[in-house]
Amino acid sequence: MTSPLDRFYQAIRDVPDFPEKGIVYKDITPLLHAPDLFVQATEKMTVGISSADVDKVLVIEARGFLFAGPVAKALDAGIVLARKAGKLPWKRRRVEYSLEYGTDAIEIHEDAVEPGERVLVVDDVLATGGTARAAAQIVEESGGRLAGFCFLIELAFLDGRSRLPDGPVNSLLTYPRVSG
Amino acid sequence: MTSPLDRFYQAIRDVPDFPEKGIVYKDITPLLHAPDLFVQATEKMTVGISSADVDKVLVIEARGFLFAGPVAKALDAGIVLARKAGKLPWKRRRVEYSLEYGTDAIEIHEDAVEPGERVLVVDDVLATGGTARAAAQIVEESGGRLAGFCFLIELAFLDGRSRLPDGPVNSLLTYPRVSG
Repeated sequence: MTSPLDRFYQAIRDVPDFPEKGIVYKDITPLLHAPDLFVQATEKMTVGISSADVDKVLVIEARGFLFAGPVAKALDAGIVLARKAGKLPWKRRRVEYSLEYGTDAIEIHEDAVEPGERVLVVDDVLATGGTARAAAQIVEESGGRLAGFCFLIELAFLDGRSRLPDGPVNSLLTYPRVSG
Repeated sequence: MTSPLDRFYQAIRDVPDFPEKGIVYKDITPLLHAPDLFVQATEKMTVGISSADVDKVLVIEARGFLFAGPVAKALDAGIVLARKAGKLPWKRRRVEYSLEYGTDAIEIHEDAVEPGERVLVVDDVLATGGTARAAAQIVEESGGRLAGFCFLIELAFLDGRSRLPDGPVNSLLTYPRVSG
């Protein structure tokens, strides 16, 4: 049985033992190489999200940046860059979060989110949810309101969804794959 | 006198002494915050470039990724990611290039550019041209053909343009600013 999502799944490449032994990395670059697939995938990512509910999309460095233009255009929204520590040039707000070993941090500019603005968090992959959760926290600490989350890929076996705050979570492709 | 480009120039913020003392950094985040400006800027960036002349757009990590979707869609092209060393998961091709102190490197996947494909190099800022030149080199070493360069901002006083190989160079905003 074929599904309209087959062509997207077929363009995701499994790379074993990256970034470390035992991890199977989902490589999205074959999806990007085809001239039409990426555009179609970004259009489907936002299905069910109303532009009336989103003022800004927050994209997470680096691969999340790929989705900034298409998602912002589809939702008629502005774009907020969430970057690793020290990369943004102006006044910054920071949230630190735990990794398996140690901590990491993301930063946004202080003027990136205005009070009351509704912000959709966008990234390529939802894995354990640590980064997305930190992004939600930085939105709230800025006085914004979380509009939900939008991912190209969800690694459901890592159960990152359960670590996210309440709100809609869109993901186009899910592993292990479910029918549809 | 006003110019149609005024609203873009007004949305670029000067940040003194970033990333180091004496450098005035051009911060594009205010342009991103407005819901319409970024979309309009990406549309103007590719004016004069024909989709018939471009098979793929190569975007440079990290801010170049912001332009991947809009430029690829406008030119009906695929997307090639050029990343810092060690970030891409699969088989990689690398080009090293000189910085003021030391060297840096960019990598693309071995299957990102097919022989004969025409590749447009896209980034946010043309400064000294080192990275863009390395990107052109990696396209040619992959068997691709350089279709030209496309930037949001050109720091003309650094004369990066003179260090690029032959080919069209599009930049929307130029410093020092010229009229028009």
